[in-house]
Amino acid sequence: MPETPAERLAHFVSELEPTAVPDTAMQTAARCFVDTLGVLLAGTKEGAGPLTIRSVRKRSGGGPSPLAGTDAYASPTDAAFANATAAHSLDFDDYTVAVPGHTSAVLVPALLALCSSEKALGRSVSGKEALCAYVAGFETMNFVGAAIRPSHYDAGWHATSTLGVFGAAAAGASALRLGTEQTQHALCAAASAAAGVRRNFGSGTKPIHAGTAARGGLSAALSAAAGVTAASDALSGEYGFFDLYAGTTTPDIDSLPELGSPFALVDDGVIFKKYACCGAAHTSVAAAEALVEDGLVASDVARATLSGPKRLEDILRYDVPSTPEEAKFSTRYPVARALAGESGGLSGYTRDALDDELVLDLCHKVRFEVDETRPYHDSGVTVHVELSSGESVTASQSARPGSPVDPISVSELRQKFIECTAETLGDRAPSAFDSVLTIEDAADVSDVVDPLLSTQTP
Amino acid sequence: MPETPAERLAHFVSELEPTAVPDTAMQTAARCFVDTLGVLLAGTKEGAGPLTIRSVRKRSGGGPSPLAGTDAYASPTDAAFANATAAHSLDFDDYTVAVPGHTSAVLVPALLALCSSEKALGRSVSGKEALCAYVAGFETMNFVGAAIRPSHYDAGWHATSTLGVFGAAAAGASALRLGTEQTQHALCAAASAAAGVRRNFGSGTKPIHAGTAARGGLSAALSAAAGVTAASDALSGEYGFFDLYAGTTTPDIDSLPELGSPFALVDDGVIFKKYACCGAAHTSVAAAEALVEDGLVASDVARATLSGPKRLEDILRYDVPSTPEEAKFSTRYPVARALAGESGGLSGYTRDALDDELVLDLCHKVRFEVDETRPYHDSGVTVHVELSSGESVTASQSARPGSPVDPISVSELRQKFIECTAETLGDRAPSAFDSVLTIEDAADVSDVVDPLLSTQTP
Repeated sequence: MPETPAERLAHFVSELEPTAVPDTAMQTAARCFVDTLGVLLAGTKEGAGPLTIRSVRKRSGGGPSPLAGTDAYASPTDAAFANATAAHSLDFDDYTVAVPGHTSAVLVPALLALCSSEKALGRSVSGKEALCAYVAGFETMNFVGAAIRPSHYDAGWHATSTLGVFGAAAAGASALRLGTEQTQHALCAAASAAAGVRRNFGSGTKPIHAGTAARGGLSAALSAAAGVTAASDALSGEYGFFDLYAGTTTPDIDSLPELGSPFALVDDGVIFKKYACCGAAHTSVAAAEALVEDGLVASDVARATLSGPKRLEDILRYDVPSTPEEAKFSTRYPVARALAGESGGLSGYTRDALDDELVLDLCHKVRFEVDETRPYHDSGVTVHVELSSGESVTASQSARPGSPVDPISVSELRQKFIECTAETLGDRAPSAFDSVLTIEDAADVSDVVDPLLSTQTP
Repeated sequence: MPETPAERLAHFVSELEPTAVPDTAMQTAARCFVDTLGVLLAGTKEGAGPLTIRSVRKRSGGGPSPLAGTDAYASPTDAAFANATAAHSLDFDDYTVAVPGHTSAVLVPALLALCSSEKALGRSVSGKEALCAYVAGFETMNFVGAAIRPSHYDAGWHATSTLGVFGAAAAGASALRLGTEQTQHALCAAASAAAGVRRNFGSGTKPIHAGTAARGGLSAALSAAAGVTAASDALSGEYGFFDLYAGTTTPDIDSLPELGSPFALVDDGVIFKKYACCGAAHTSVAAAEALVEDGLVASDVARATLSGPKRLEDILRYDVPSTPEEAKFSTRYPVARALAGESGGLSGYTRDALDDELVLDLCHKVRFEVDETRPYHDSGVTVHVELSSGESVTASQSARPGSPVDPISVSELRQKFIECTAETLGDRAPSAFDSVLTIEDAADVSDVVDPLLSTQTP
């Protein structure tokens, strides 16, 4: 009898050893850890992150897992929920076009909360094991998504959450070293915990989707570890996940990718956000930055036209933003900031930054027009700037900044991390960056990360 | 502009005061509390309940809310998860045909965990407030279900969980005394936490569905209390709950019932389980019991025919059961026990009970036949017994035992409670029953219930 998708996943996840994970994947996973830690700590200060952390803290009686950015602790499920929400709070966390969704904001906080709990129970999860567990979770999200993309997301499901729960279950099962049977129960239990509707985009509940997935997936792994069973065909059977979450699509289960050959984390990779705005605006910022690098000066700009696929107009709905959240989803603002030669990082999307006269003036000089020649899902844009002199300059960008084809450098990652953790780590940031980037060498992940998550003096 | 369903619900829930709840509803809610407490304590001993409680306990650092049947405590979300799973662990908890699903296994543990947490924060939730919150949760589950029944359940969703999350959010919002706006955010956040696939029926994950809903709904209420927002049309908008969870049905939102006029808890009520088996087998047991009450003796039975709607055959899939779980979902076994004049309670569905020679013998004498004259969703059955003497006797039962039209008496509820809590409360059971049945008079719900949930000497 052919294996069900859950059986295939369970074998892959339970048999994956750190030595079988390609170096590139381990390296990418380590970058995901350090970048997620940075945006997580930044996300404890703004948006749904701090609200959620405070709420969990208020009712927690303590526990083994740090609540990020505080001196408080909670159970692993509560900590995974709060910290994952913080990691997605600023929408500055990595994502992948393949899933499609944010992988690390779910996987990393779930894993870290679990590792702290394992440590409290007397067992170390090493850096290699944690990275391997991350890879297991990432490949699982990609595999489950492969059967139902793009219809699942297009129908209205937030894949970060609905697929993230499988990822967190797989990562948890891997870190707990569950056998094949229990791993399968974990994955099939996760089918009963998949939730997250795109209608809640634009509200504080959006980042909570990462929290729900992290908690639900980790909980499924812990239930399976405790001996709770689930139906072996809860993904692919009648009344199962694919049946209920894939709309009218009948997933072509037979054509699912081979797990681990190749690894999606190697082939598709992850997109690390360079700018603190919506991923859809990233190519626009890069094009504008290129013009500034070539010598364009803000005061010379008479008007600018950003042209790109219709999709940009659908996603980036605010022209001149009135709030930081709107600024992240504006066609004009990110381009105006870049044309002004100013940072696209966190400090560019604060209340104060929005009052910057120069950027505001440029904002009114930028307009967006749909480029009908570009396919809807294309990421490419062109920025055409008419100068006061009457001349004009143009730059195009098609690759997504921070993606494997236009990668973020380690020094850019470090810079982002330092900006993200200025308030929480301060002077400790550079050494923290180095120690998490080399987490593969750690004998116990929690020894390295927990003192950084917690504001308590270690 | 007409109100959205979420707005209507938010007004109803936030404005519902105990004084506006009909006495019948308060009385039924109190019975739900005491009956749920009984099956919850029984469910800490068998099935997914004890596994889940042990798992949560192992990693908990304590908290304000008791983990049922233990001396340990956890955060309200973790306790709601574990205790709700225990309440549904034996499938002996109340349900309602209208939702359709189990309401109290979700609502009562969520509320109790929250009340303990409020108490720890220095605020009492009174009996009246808790019952009012239960009613708010119940009416919410019914209201959301009204738009999408029966297609939602028939498609494969476990409504206990997918609608339970809205119920727990509403009950939590009510007990927290949230205003209309925050209540709406709680309900709309719940739309991003709805999960539970029927494919997991028959596995240990089925009772966990109650836990997931209790945790998710309570978490949504706590997030809203902390100031997290959600989209106002997360239930009824494009990409919202109805869109994604109601299959091809376009819910007729305009024809939704008026909230509170009448109260569904009064009009439809709750079905309290008299027997520790699937609700679909309850009319069969009642018919067989009627024959025994009329003088039928087991040794006189030559053969018996149970005839009922096709649905029974679909749900009760095991003829002669080999496990207690199969016995609960058998057409023959519950009838055989009743014909033997033996208990339909918990003790009838243990490993030992299955070895009862008399019942086993009767099991082989019972057969099921589909009564084509009965509609698929009918609950009625006929038991026809041929006696050794050549005579025969017949009894029919159409009303579901324990439903408002064939209600369970307070003394039957008490008897059930005492059987359910023999291991945990022992001699304390009768007085415990009385104090929870009159919980309406309590100044603080936790003062009454927490010492019963916890094995710690108060």
